[in-house]
Amino acid sequence: MELVPNNTLICASPEDGRRLALSLAMQTSFAIQPDDHVQKIIRDAYMNNPDGLIAAGHVVAIEFATIAAANNYWR
Amino acid sequence: MELVPNNTLICASPEDGRRLALSLAMQTSFAIQPDDHVQKIIRDAYMNNPDGLIAAGHVVAIEFATIAAANNYWR
Amino acid sequence: MELVPNNTLICASPEDGRRLALSLAMQTSFAIQPDDHVQKIIRDAYMNNPDGLIAAGHVVAIEFATIAAANNYWR
Amino acid sequence: MELVPNNTLICASPEDGRRLALSLAMQTSFAIQPDDHVQKIIRDAYMNNPDGLIAAGHVVAIEFATIAAANNYWR
Amino acid sequence: MELVPNNTLICASPEDGRRLALSLAMQTSFAIQPDDHVQKIIRDAYMNNPDGLIAAGHVVAIEFATIAAANNYWR
Amino acid sequence: MELVPNNTLICASPEDGRRLALSLAMQTSFAIQPDDHVQKIIRDAYMNNPDGLIAAGHVVAIEFATIAAANNYWR
Repeated sequence: MELVPNNTLICASPEDGRRLALSLAMQTSFAIQPDDHVQKIIRDAYMNNPDGLIAAGHVVAIEFATIAAANNYWR
Repeated sequence: MELVPNNTLICASPEDGRRLALSLAMQTSFAIQPDDHVQKIIRDAYMNNPDGLIAAGHVVAIEFATIAAANNYWR
Repeated sequence: MELVPNNTLICASPEDGRRLALSLAMQTSFAIQPDDHVQKIIRDAYMNNPDGLIAAGHVVAIEFATIAAANNYWR
Repeated sequence: MELVPNNTLICASPEDGRRLALSLAMQTSFAIQPDDHVQKIIRDAYMNNPDGLIAAGHVVAIEFATIAAANNYWR
Repeated sequence: MELVPNNTLICASPEDGRRLALSLAMQTSFAIQPDDHVQKIIRDAYMNNPDGLIAAGHVVAIEFATIAAANNYWR
Repeated sequence: MELVPNNTLICASPEDGRRLALSLAMQTSFAIQPDDHVQKIIRDAYMNNPDGLIAAGHVVAIEFATIAAANNYWR
């Protein structure tokens, strides 16, 4: 199972960087819980829960901070 | 769906940077939960809950840290 | 509504920086929940709750990290 | 009320830096909740609770990261 | 018990870096709770719980940020 | 009570750095709650609880990030 799509943090733009951040978070979730059915139940749960949705966004924000630094913030 | 408004982290001032941080957090929330009606219910929930409001502010603080670094803190 | 007082992260001292961190956190809270009455209820709640008070301090610590870096730690 | 003891992040050693981190966290807690009696009740609560004690340590870790960077890690 | 596999943060690629991040998080969990049986019960619990799975991913994201910086983001 | 063992963040290897991170987290926990008996009860609680174990690992990850930066990631 691939944890980092294309095995690089370098990407063309912030938009791509943000999608990579979402992917990193999702792939790691699958690495910890590989069962598709369980993942679907879990995803349905946090997508429809304020604390869960904020906590998921929190992880994406941290992943994005790493990716943005990797790309010198696309300055 | 656009995750990063104008596909750049570079903005003119801290105030613009702070608004971008709020946008990043919101756009990612929508990327995870795209249903407008559910988003409204969720937003009403955390806006009126101490833990939810602090957790949302926490994510904005992390997004802002990334944006501020991207803009060399508007020194 | 102003999110960043004086639209700058640059301030004279750590003490000013800490006050700015508190302001950033509060202004963002108001941007998410602009209702004064609700804000008062929410503030009373987390001010008198161990988890809430720690979580609020946590956000201030993150905001301060950004402001301190912006000011080269007032070295 | 002083938020940053001696209004500086610069200190002689990691040990001093760690104490400053504890102080920053405490002073901000007092800035948010200035009532001594409430503070005592809150402190008793989180000091005797696993989640509270970890959450408090978490804030100190973030404050220390800022102070350590300010002092170039006392290299 | 080894906390850092091969006692180095330097690794060949982001994919290796992500696996190291997962290992760091797991090894520290074992350092705090060395009992295999308890670890299995705990792992089963958070793997099947939305908040637990997100919180675990959150720790991996922080470990990865450190490892990515250590490797200059594999630029 | 010593908060930072040997009053330095500089250590020989990532393994030593990880142990120092664990020590920093523990020493701060003791600084906030110095009672050995209470500490034992608290430790037993979070060691056997998924959320507690993850939260403790989270703090270690943040302490380690600081120590790794202090040691230039043992490059």
